[in-house]
Amino acid sequence: MAIKITGTGSFIPSQIEKNEDFYKHEFLNADGSSINNSNEVIVKKFKAITGIGERRYIKPSLTNSDIAYYAAQKAIEDAKINQEELDYIIVAHNYGDVKHNTEQSDTVPSIGSRVKHLLGIKNPKCVAYDVLFGCPGWVEAVIQANAFIKAGIAKKCLVIGSETLSRVIDKHDRDSMIYSDGAGATIIENTVHEGGIINHESATYALDEAHFIYFGETNNLEVTDKRRYIKMYGRKIYEFALNNVPAAMKSCLDGSGIDIRDIKKILIHQANEKMDEAIVERFYKLYNMDMPEGIMPMTINKLGNSSVATVPTLFDMILKNNLEGHSINEGDLIMFASVGAGMNINAIIYKH
Amino acid sequence: MAIKITGTGSFIPSQIEKNEDFYKHEFLNADGSSINNSNEVIVKKFKAITGIGERRYIKPSLTNSDIAYYAAQKAIEDAKINQEELDYIIVAHNYGDVKHNTEQSDTVPSIGSRVKHLLGIKNPKCVAYDVLFGCPGWVEAVIQANAFIKAGIAKKCLVIGSETLSRVIDKHDRDSMIYSDGAGATIIENTVHEGGIINHESATYALDEAHFIYFGETNNLEVTDKRRYIKMYGRKIYEFALNNVPAAMKSCLDGSGIDIRDIKKILIHQANEKMDEAIVERFYKLYNMDMPEGIMPMTINKLGNSSVATVPTLFDMILKNNLEGHSINEGDLIMFASVGAGMNINAIIYKH
Repeated sequence: MAIKITGTGSFIPSQIEKNEDFYKHEFLNADGSSINNSNEVIVKKFKAITGIGERRYIKPSLTNSDIAYYAAQKAIEDAKINQEELDYIIVAHNYGDVKHNTEQSDTVPSIGSRVKHLLGIKNPKCVAYDVLFGCPGWVEAVIQANAFIKAGIAKKCLVIGSETLSRVIDKHDRDSMIYSDGAGATIIENTVHEGGIINHESATYALDEAHFIYFGETNNLEVTDKRRYIKMYGRKIYEFALNNVPAAMKSCLDGSGIDIRDIKKILIHQANEKMDEAIVERFYKLYNMDMPEGIMPMTINKLGNSSVATVPTLFDMILKNNLEGHSINEGDLIMFASVGAGMNINAIIYKH
Repeated sequence: MAIKITGTGSFIPSQIEKNEDFYKHEFLNADGSSINNSNEVIVKKFKAITGIGERRYIKPSLTNSDIAYYAAQKAIEDAKINQEELDYIIVAHNYGDVKHNTEQSDTVPSIGSRVKHLLGIKNPKCVAYDVLFGCPGWVEAVIQANAFIKAGIAKKCLVIGSETLSRVIDKHDRDSMIYSDGAGATIIENTVHEGGIINHESATYALDEAHFIYFGETNNLEVTDKRRYIKMYGRKIYEFALNNVPAAMKSCLDGSGIDIRDIKKILIHQANEKMDEAIVERFYKLYNMDMPEGIMPMTINKLGNSSVATVPTLFDMILKNNLEGHSINEGDLIMFASVGAGMNINAIIYKH
């Protein structure tokens, strides 16, 4: 018995928002003061640190549940399953459906229910619910599906990570350039094959870290409405991630009994290229090794940080040969890892 | 081995909103037309159907995560556990934290992370996440905790249902009188005793039913902002519940191997007294029985519909001898059942 990902699908929005598109924004510091640099310099510095050159936004007519549905359709088709056989639809997100030019998150019914409705699944025993766990939501939802299968209450699960951060960004905040939209979906099944999910690890750091990523007002003090946006303490997150993610990855790998030299790819959540490189370098340093070349496929340059969608989208792109220079073949050992709001960290050792 | 609820706690807000407090509201039909009745008559009719005489609202200074934390503290104390031993904090809610006099739902970080922060739990291996599953969220979160324990990835879980519907109601909608605030918390543990969670059943009806409970604009057409509120198609929900909940309860009971005559109490989600009575009557009719007197403890008259909080609060009140005429003793067989947005239905057969 092996609990495996038998199908993947993703939705990458067609609208490309380039770094140059931010030249017209009025960026301000968190205290409302102006920044002593031109937008060109701000954007250049941003690119140098995060690696982000462009990101994707959904069209005004779409919402998060729509793109979750598009990705789900592809995953179901890819897994060649009858969708009526699904026991669970688990959707990881953070802000629900936020319609274009509105500010409220719509979470009732759940995004899972909406996706089930759009898919036209009749079987009432297919249970649809949503998970809120910050950016590590998709990895965590896979861990939950794995538990349901192990506990004997599920055989086939549709697990989606879908987010539209473009709907919750403060245009006066430089960090707004990080965020992106997207959806990635996977079918998790109990199979007769070997491998699959070998080990997993999750953690929530909430004592000092709970509000490192939060909902806050615009940096523009002239705006007096109470509207809030996604906000973060970037430096604190950077330090937190470097101090805690490599050790969590090591704990997950060591618990799996797998040799680090057998890991073919690390699919890590992408919020900042320099941070990801530093995390994975430190992870290898824990084994007195240098980071192998090509171990960490990156999409951040073109896709930005699409939260819960980043890891499943990256996995889907590699499997479908849509990420140059990277492939994952049957039997390959890989690691999924993510860090984000909560602050949450998780990882999975997976044999494809 | 038995997976049992070893501690309970609840938070019932102190602010009582009486039916008479609604006399000053301008109620309108969904199409914006006025209602050909005085508010006194509207409220009287409402009371006759729903059984609701008053409901509770939290104070302006509080949010959903605050009351989730208050209930959690009590449950931890009641279970006499060290909170650092918790493997999971699972919070069922639907609208996150909505601050007084604001309209946005705040869900980042998750309510689970906020509760963990407020409790001051240090252990990072205590994983905190949120579940969105409509009003049946607490029952579903118990089912998830049960699965994690069965799968061997948890031993002790804190499972909370917490909601502040007073923050998302349309004052021009008669249905606004239904909704209430509250929080109920439970500790779910793997124990050496017998009984505990014997069977469970969950379902999501999303083909025609997904949007029976939804986020919609005010009934007052003169208000032109885009703000949305909790809305429902009451008649459709009533028919849906009567057609589907009794059968789901029967399926859960039959799968447990327990005789219906051995069920001591049915703790059902409370959105409408007449509907609950009709559901439980139909459930007994499926066994050619009349509904036993006192089988269904009700709090709706005083507490209204506090969504995910209703069932755990009811359970806590009975265990603490705070609901006159009702008790649950060790070894008693009870059923938890709920129905709500999704549309979701679930049930648990539980031996205390």
